Amino acid sequence: MTDWSTASAATVAEAVCTGQVSARAVAEAALARIAAVDPRTNAFTDVLGARALARADAIDAGIRRGEAPGALAGVPFAVKNLIDVAELPTRAGAKINRDRAPAARDGALVRRLEAAGAVLVGTLNMGEYAYDFTGENVHDGDSRNPHDLGHMTGGSSGGSGAAVAAGLVPLSLGSDTNGSIRVPSAFCGCFGLKPTYGRLTRAGSFPFVGSLDHLGPMARTVHDLARAYDAMQGEDPEDPVATTRAPEPALPDLEDGLGSLRVAVAGGYFARGGDPEAFAAVARVADALGATRTVEVPEAARARAAAYLITAAEGAALHLDRLRARAGDFDPAVRDRLIAGAMIPAPHVERAQRFRRWYRAAVLDLFREVDILLAPATPCRAPRSGQKTFVIDGVELPVRANIGLFTQPLSFIGLPVVVVPVRLDDGLPLGVQVVAAPWREADALRVARVLERSGAVRAPVAALD
Amino acid sequence: MTDWSTASAATVAEAVCTGQVSARAVAEAALARIAAVDPRTNAFTDVLGARALARADAIDAGIRRGEAPGALAGVPFAVKNLIDVAELPTRAGAKINRDRAPAARDGALVRRLEAAGAVLVGTLNMGEYAYDFTGENVHDGDSRNPHDLGHMTGGSSGGSGAAVAAGLVPLSLGSDTNGSIRVPSAFCGCFGLKPTYGRLTRAGSFPFVGSLDHLGPMARTVHDLARAYDAMQGEDPEDPVATTRAPEPALPDLEDGLGSLRVAVAGGYFARGGDPEAFAAVARVADALGATRTVEVPEAARARAAAYLITAAEGAALHLDRLRARAGDFDPAVRDRLIAGAMIPAPHVERAQRFRRWYRAAVLDLFREVDILLAPATPCRAPRSGQKTFVIDGVELPVRANIGLFTQPLSFIGLPVVVVPVRLDDGLPLGVQVVAAPWREADALRVARVLERSGAVRAPVAALD
Repeated sequence: MTDWSTASAATVAEAVCTGQVSARAVAEAALARIAAVDPRTNAFTDVLGARALARADAIDAGIRRGEAPGALAGVPFAVKNLIDVAELPTRAGAKINRDRAPAARDGALVRRLEAAGAVLVGTLNMGEYAYDFTGENVHDGDSRNPHDLGHMTGGSSGGSGAAVAAGLVPLSLGSDTNGSIRVPSAFCGCFGLKPTYGRLTRAGSFPFVGSLDHLGPMARTVHDLARAYDAMQGEDPEDPVATTRAPEPALPDLEDGLGSLRVAVAGGYFARGGDPEAFAAVARVADALGATRTVEVPEAARARAAAYLITAAEGAALHLDRLRARAGDFDPAVRDRLIAGAMIPAPHVERAQRFRRWYRAAVLDLFREVDILLAPATPCRAPRSGQKTFVIDGVELPVRANIGLFTQPLSFIGLPVVVVPVRLDDGLPLGVQVVAAPWREADALRVARVLERSGAVRAPVAALD
Repeated sequence: MTDWSTASAATVAEAVCTGQVSARAVAEAALARIAAVDPRTNAFTDVLGARALARADAIDAGIRRGEAPGALAGVPFAVKNLIDVAELPTRAGAKINRDRAPAARDGALVRRLEAAGAVLVGTLNMGEYAYDFTGENVHDGDSRNPHDLGHMTGGSSGGSGAAVAAGLVPLSLGSDTNGSIRVPSAFCGCFGLKPTYGRLTRAGSFPFVGSLDHLGPMARTVHDLARAYDAMQGEDPEDPVATTRAPEPALPDLEDGLGSLRVAVAGGYFARGGDPEAFAAVARVADALGATRTVEVPEAARARAAAYLITAAEGAALHLDRLRARAGDFDPAVRDRLIAGAMIPAPHVERAQRFRRWYRAAVLDLFREVDILLAPATPCRAPRSGQKTFVIDGVELPVRANIGLFTQPLSFIGLPVVVVPVRLDDGLPLGVQVVAAPWREADALRVARVLERSGAVRAPVAALD
């Protein structure tokens, strides 16, 4: 008998559509598993049982009336708590935000997923104001890695990674400014998509850095990831930057194999500064794809520095009033960096923006030669909870500031990335970034599917033993 | 007999086209007048005699061959020395820039004017790096006001104002970041057009603040201003921000009169903080137009502060390497402000940018109610050369920082403005800003022409006695 609580989104949707199971039974199974497991993983900050059951009942009633229930019929999902959910204050991981008025309606992506038949079951833990790579949160407690509860989930979408990896939901949403979808996907061993900057609407979400913020899905199969992604695409005049465009569905070509896609490993910056396992994971993926070429991303270290500068300064600008009025209510690890960001001289940020234009053009040039770049997602496996430093290339470095060193230079110019989870051994998973040219998410998803079919990458539900 | 050295551009072009005078004779007359007069006005930094005569001969030869010589046939003009001129280093008023390699070719607007038959006769003095409202320059000497050589021209396009007002050329080009076309037009008593942000290409000019820089013409008649403006319009893929668009000529409707245009005086911020004469000049113009309505531009003081912040920070970013390497070679008055700008915290600038978006929307709302706003160009007539402070509303203020207080809130959001010169008495002229909605330069020019026909405004050649 199928365990609906840990089934894939595709399996659930097919079963609900064909009447094999009711949306209500699926929702009840998910809620039961959350109740049983989440006290250990701490992925959820709100479980919306009544809302989920009412929504599931409505889907079942629609099916009885003969209505088409949508590509995600009855699929439970949960969202990082910086995405609006009607009647809840959008907390964005912050104590301060709990005092906000409840959201008047769901964020745009929640509405799009529910329009496709999905069932929101709750909101997910995150690093305060998304300024985090660890998944630790002083107000709500740390989210915990389902593969080893003594280790970090990664952040800031830590609850989104933990909920998927623990089999609490087949699908979650996260946000990624400098790596916040990709890092927890890697540490928790699930698939994650950070789309092209501007692809998925951010209407109805709490911002961090307007020119770097992305929303995207996390899942345990590439197919689920693509199905959710397709359901969320499309123009939205309410998007704060209004860069959204007409849908370009990824599912139709997902099984087409590698075809003529040219795959290369990112060298130079992306081939040093990490544990040997991080590069072994890339090699495993490159082997499975038959990729032998290496290309160098120019000035990636500078890109990371520029991303940091812009993040700190724009983040500080966003939070300046809160820093003045309620400094004591911030997570200390976030507050200190925001205060530092408030003092960065403007010409440095201006120059970082100017460099960004140069760097974007230089990297786009690379994509004339290749279609897909492979790079590690993180320099190491998930550190232990509370771990403050790690040793990389023989140098002891602060954990918090350095987990994102391979993700930052890519989000800096909004490239689409699918993280694929690699299991080298019985230890914690590792992630590899499958990077495509702007607006070519479908290429990255196709490559991820090739890898999944080959067995080189996989995202099992964590044993939680 | 016509004095070709002080004739209008239209008069010259008609006479050259009909063979009444040769382009060479006009160029020789201009060069002779520059040689005779400019030692007193110090408007020119380079006089290009050989180039001008060769160009004039080519025009005359073309006419003899029966070619159409263009709307500006044989019209002498000169450009602020931040616009590239082939074979000259683009000095932008700076000693440091004299060490630059000579420009490989003329800036785009020089090419467009010459394509219409105009003849470049030289480059014009300016405040260092355009960070100036006075027309003073420690390296090249101050440009001097032709209406009283002991007074400022205003800046930073001081040479552009002096050359036109002294009758050295009928047409000049300036640049305007916070008021640098409008202030010298007002102080020197000529017409000046700061077009909509992005209207005229800036390719081949030395920048100051990318998001605030405009190039535009200055002249002694509205017709000449419109004729030059029309010749310079049009898309240019080489424009650094690429906001240029297809031409929308102003000349065809220039004589149409006021028609249904709704004219209002800007109240509040724009009705205080200046000498009584500044407001008397506005009243003179409003009377001539029958304008009785007053509207308030919301948060104009804040707009000026935000323009200052962005200017100082972006200007410092542009010059940071030069400040580090050659601080001693800057004009002290410019260096000090750039160094201060280098230390402005980035979140303040980010917030200024956010305010700017709000302010633009608020002011655009105003233009649903009116078509033209009238405001003083400057708070006073041209101060004496070297004057450091003035008294406004009973408060002693630094001259340099406060001349632009009525121009800054308008260029901040790129509104098109024609400055019209008012002579209240035998004293120095005053300018009034005729402000239109974005891309409606033609409206502002039409209104200026109504005023010129009525006799309320005029731009005679200065007596220079």
